[in-house]
Amino acid sequence: MTITADQVKQLREMTGAGMMECKRALAETGGDLDKAVDSLRKSGAAKAEKRAGRTAQEGRVDSYIHPGNRVGVLVEINCETDFVARTDEFGDLVRNIAMQVAAAGAEYVRREEVPAERVSRERDILAGSTELQGKPAAILDKIISGKLDKFFAEVCLLEQPYIRDDKRKVSDLVQEAAAKTGENIVVRRFSRFRLGQE
Amino acid sequence: MTITADQVKQLREMTGAGMMECKRALAETGGDLDKAVDSLRKSGAAKAEKRAGRTAQEGRVDSYIHPGNRVGVLVEINCETDFVARTDEFGDLVRNIAMQVAAAGAEYVRREEVPAERVSRERDILAGSTELQGKPAAILDKIISGKLDKFFAEVCLLEQPYIRDDKRKVSDLVQEAAAKTGENIVVRRFSRFRLGQE
Repeated sequence: MTITADQVKQLREMTGAGMMECKRALAETGGDLDKAVDSLRKSGAAKAEKRAGRTAQEGRVDSYIHPGNRVGVLVEINCETDFVARTDEFGDLVRNIAMQVAAAGAEYVRREEVPAERVSRERDILAGSTELQGKPAAILDKIISGKLDKFFAEVCLLEQPYIRDDKRKVSDLVQEAAAKTGENIVVRRFSRFRLGQE
Repeated sequence: MTITADQVKQLREMTGAGMMECKRALAETGGDLDKAVDSLRKSGAAKAEKRAGRTAQEGRVDSYIHPGNRVGVLVEINCETDFVARTDEFGDLVRNIAMQVAAAGAEYVRREEVPAERVSRERDILAGSTELQGKPAAILDKIISGKLDKFFAEVCLLEQPYIRDDKRKVSDLVQEAAAKTGENIVVRRFSRFRLGQE
């Protein structure tokens, strides 16, 4: 019984376990992938969040080009299975998010992606604004953090109000689609070109 | 006779000359833009390549999504006038280049954009290859530079063979479109997403 490199690779992708552990598990189970997964799970080597099909590696790449061809957007949105990726539900979500980026021009997907220097520059500008001079320190922090939230809601796609219904945030759209499809959905990245602009 | 800020701005865009020079030229010519351009040209202050309409600031943003939505490309291609940007000729060029990027996967538009570290790493790898050991230094340089050209032809869009006619390079396509339209055409940038890939 020989264990092929492909089997090991597949098992690693299914479990996130190390190569030697996967080899051992396959040897023990005579090359049976399902049994090997169970064996790794028992030994604790399989990472729960790396279970087959639970990571958002499928999905769609799609674009929206605004009429006139002066603004265009490319997006990648991930879900867990090709089956969900092909549904109209998921396709609509991807299209709506591409239109959102074209219309509202986010710079980042999420708050964590905004560079720390930019956040601290923003904070400095706010702290130095004449409007805030002379306020007691206790409420100053609250005001600044509220204004920073507004800044994030402008530059981060997921925090923006949805262009077609400003009662909801873009992250709400994503959550709703995740609930309907029963899969984890992740906005992975986008690119936005505006003619002649950086 | 007052010279407005808008007039100065327009003259600067037309000539690339400095603000004070533009103000002086407009004052001398009573605000006549064409005469002011001539005056600046005579004094040598106008940069020839900055003549009105000679910069490629118009153009199109467009995309190509490969069927199945696993690979998508966004491109911006510039020309000089909105008139040419709207022609079928130019639209075809943009579409063909987007398809090229989707199919052949360039990483950069042109050679100058490849980071110096990457070029020197590539050069080191080539210089260290067993195939080249023992060759005389005189021909070694030639072989390496030839192999570097092959590397650039793989990663730089403009140097790639055109997917629909490998006798021509992508830069030839651009040149042909420039000759037909009579305008300067520049591939400005592109973005290529492949599902699940960096």
